[in-house]
This record gives sequence, C-alpha cells and structure tokens, in this order.
Amino acid sequence: MKILIVGAGGTLGHAVVAELGQRHEIVSAGRQSGDLRVDIADPASVRALFEKTGPLDAIVCAAGSVHFGPLDTFTEEQFARGINDKLMGQVRLVREGVAHLRDGGSFTLITGILTDQPIVQGVSASMVNGAVEAFVRAAAIELPRGIRINAVSPTILTESMGSYGPYFRGFEPVPAARAALAFSRSVEGAETGRVYKIH
Amino acid sequence: MKILIVGAGGTLGHAVVAELGQRHEIVSAGRQSGDLRVDIADPASVRALFEKTGPLDAIVCAAGSVHFGPLDTFTEEQFARGINDKLMGQVRLVREGVAHLRDGGSFTLITGILTDQPIVQGVSASMVNGAVEAFVRAAAIELPRGIRINAVSPTILTESMGSYGPYFRGFEPVPAARAALAFSRSVEGAETGRVYKIH
Ligand SMILES: NC(=O)c1ccc[n+]([C@@H]2O[C@H](COP(=O)([O-])OP(=O)(O)OC[C@H]3O[C@@H](n4cnc5c(N)ncnc54)[C@H](OP(=O)(O)O)[C@@H]3O)[C@@H](O)[C@H]2O)c1
Ligand SMILES: NC(=O)c1ccc[n+]([C@@H]2O[C@H](COP(=O)([O-])OP(=O)(O)OC[C@H]3O[C@@H](n4cnc5c(N)ncnc54)[C@H](OP(=O)(O)O)[C@@H]3O)[C@@H](O)[C@H]2O)c1
Repeated sequence: MKILIVGAGGTLGHAVVAELGQRHEIVSAGRQSGDLRVDIADPASVRALFEKTGPLDAIVCAAGSVHFGPLDTFTEEQFARGINDKLMGQVRLVREGVAHLRDGGSFTLITGILTDQPIVQGVSASMVNGAVEAFVRAAAIELPRGIRINAVSPTILTESMGSYGPYFRGFEPVPAARAALAFSRSVEGAETGRVYKIH
Repeated sequence: MKILIVGAGGTLGHAVVAELGQRHEIVSAGRQSGDLRVDIADPASVRALFEKTGPLDAIVCAAGSVHFGPLDTFTEEQFARGINDKLMGQVRLVREGVAHLRDGGSFTLITGILTDQPIVQGVSASMVNGAVEAFVRAAAIELPRGIRINAVSPTILTESMGSYGPYFRGFEPVPAARAALAFSRSVEGAETGRVYKIH
C-alpha cells in the first residue's frame, strides 16, 4: 500500500512509520518536516497536499494540536485553535483526501483518552477528541467505494511522560509502539467507524 | 430555584418548561421569543443576557442548530455553523454563566443520539454532540463552588417525527416529556459530568 502519514515526524508519528513502514510505502507530511509539507489548519494547504500525493491506499493522521489551560481563563480564540487544527484539520484531510483514495482505502484519525477521561486544563482536548470520534462514526456510513474510517485513541505515551507527565498523574502510559499497532489494525484490517482505545 | 432556559419556546424547550415550571421560577430565553432575547451563536449577546438574568440556580439549554447534508458536499461554512451555534454557543453559556450561578448551581446542556448512533447527512450533528458531551465530562472536574454540569442526549422526539422522521427511519421516538425528565434529574439531582441518554 501507499500510505500518507501526516505528523510522521512526531512522537506518535515516528512509531506509526516504524510499524507501517515495514510493509508499505510511506509518504510523510508535516509543517516543517516530511516528504511533503502541509498545515492541516489551512484548507488551501490541505488541498495543495493532495495535488502532490497521487493516488493513495491509506491516509493516516498523527498530528493536531489544541490549547491546554484552565476552563475559567479559556478564550474564544483558544477554543478556536483546537477546533481549526486537530478537529477541522482532520475533517479536511477526509473531505479533500477521499477523491485521492483508491477503492477500499482508509482514513485513520487521532484522538486520545481525554474524550472519556478528562484532566484539569484539558477541556479543549476533550471537546476536540469527542468531536473527532463522533465524526468518525458518522462519516463511516457515508464514505463511498468501500472507503473506511477509524480513530485511534491512546492514553499518554511513555515517550511523552517527560513533557506531559505532570498533567497525567496516575495515568498508566503506553509505549508509542503499542498505539502504532492500532494504526496497523485500522489500515490493514477491515473495520470501519471504530475508535481503537489504547488505554 | 430560579432557572434560565435557553430555547424554552422550542419543541424540547416547551416540555422542559412544563416539567421544571411546576416547582421552579423559569426565565425563558430565545432569539425571537421568551422573557429575554439571546443568540448563543453571538458571544456579545450571551454576555448581555447575563447582565439581565441576575443570580441563577440553574442554566439549561434546549437550543442549538447544526447543518444537515451529505458528507461529500459539506463545506467549511456548513461545519462552522454547528460549531459556532450548538457547540460554542453552549460553551459560551457555561463560560459566561458560571459567574451568575449560585454555589451548588448547575448547567444542563443538550446533545442527541447522533453522538453514538449516526444517520446519513448527520456528520455535523454527530461531531457537535460528541464535542459537547466530552466538554461536559471535562468541565465537570473544573467548575468551582460545587457547580455541576450534565448533558441530555435524547433520540428523535415523537413531536418532531413530522419534520425529521424521514432522516430517522427505524429509530424509536420518545416523547419530549420523557427527555424533560432528564433535565429535571440533572437540575434537581446531585450528579455531575453525566450524559443522560434518553434512548
Ligand atoms: N503524545 C501523547 O502522549 C499523545 C497521547 C494521546 C494522543 N496524542 C495525540 O497524537 C497526536 C500527535 O501527538 P505527538 O505527541 O506525537 O505530537 P508531536 O510530537 O508534537 O508531533 C506532531 C507531528 O505533527 C506535525 N504537525 C503538528 N501540527 C500540524 C499541522 N497543523 N499540520 C501538519 N502537521 C502538523 C508535526 O510536525 P511539524 O511541526 O513539522 O508540523 C509533528 O510531526 C496529537 O493529536 C496528540 O493529541 C498524543
Ligand atoms: N427535536 C428532536 O427530535 C431532538 C432530538 C434530540 C436532540 N434535539 C436537540 O434539542 C435542541 C432543541 O431542539 P428542538 O427540536 O426543540 O428545536 P426547536 O423546536 O427549533 O427549538 C429551538 C429553540 O431554541 C431557540 N434557539 C434556536 N437557536 C438559538 C440560538 N442560536 N440562540 C438562542 N436560542 C436559539 C429557538 O427560539 P428562537 O427561534 O426564538 O431563537 C427555539 O425556542 C437542539 O439542539 C436539537 O439538536 C432535538
């Protein structure tokens, strides 16, 4: 398969490339790194990306950011960041990418444990993850030509404990390689509309 | 209790007023109807609303709209409508309303069955409902002074079968009065961070 991985250069993305790269041709993408450059927060940039990829068998996202901060200081702009980047950025990959996926191809989006299990300062992350997961269930019943869509929802990654550990006290981390297996299951399996919870 | 009900004039809102109005003082609000006028899609309008309500014991939302349409024709603007109205409109009620709620007060937001069980043309509704439900779980652990927050997630209402029935073939409708009980449970109960599924 020829697989586009957006966010391939990140903590999670590295592990996804290591897993899927063993068996498939990877096209990596990111804002500052990768074979192709894209900012999923920018609709024109997402459209331009697919002019360069050619036909694909799978589109994977391991990118997307949101603002973290206390609920009582959150501004409209801070909520808008996560909505435009991790939420609508991934929706854009689906909307623009579908025409470039071969029959029976797949999308695999990224969410996270905060959909189900909140942390203090994580309201925007929870909101955005919950939105992406429900979008995945809904898009699954409308995508054409046998195209599938799933999400991967990891808990905090072992590799990220140094940076985010203090926000996730008591959460049991998982290695990025374990989360990467769920990407393999989505891309190389046959299910659709699923959220693979790695927690 | 003194309870603000946004969307009190709607199909669901009527039933919520009928239930809570038996025991409590209701302040109704809507764009074109109600004791007070507000458009939750407009941040300034939400701020202005709370200058008129005075202190409240509960803030209830039975309003909020999203665009319905096929995934393959959805535009950025159509997604933005649901995000700015039903999603961020309700988040605004929480962000602006919290200072006007008495200690131990509550928020009750509205979502719907499409979070869990999609319909064709419902991607935006699913996304927005999923976002609001995850927001509710996350906000519940940050709200101050014993303030609680829950969501009510009804299936299609019997009263709405005339208009939306064709989109919900095979779904078992519930009377609005049954969904209104969940609002009572949220407002007059003691739980927080819950999604009451009326389906
Ligand atoms: N790390 C965790 O513990 C964890 C747990 C659960 C879920 N997640 C989720 O997994 C995803 C990746 O997390 P991570 O920790 O691996 O992040 P990361 O190390 O910061 O990597 C993010 C990657 O995505 C790219 N990227 C960021 N924003 C982008 C944009 N707008 N458009 C295109 N590419 C973009 C970055 O490259 P450029 O800077 O070159 O663009 C980078 O390659 C996030 O959505 C995160 O919420 C992470
Ligand atoms: N009906 C169902 O079967 C059903 C099932 C599950 C969930 N829901 C959800 O329940 C909520 C209400 O549905 P409904 O069928 O009762 O709708 P409805 O009959 O159209 O009533 C909506 C009410 O909210 C007000 N409103 C609408 N947009 C507003 C805004 N931006 N700012 C302030 N007020 C606004 C309307 O009054 P004005 O026009 O005067 O503003 C009206 O009073 C929606 O979020 C819907 O998704 C409905």
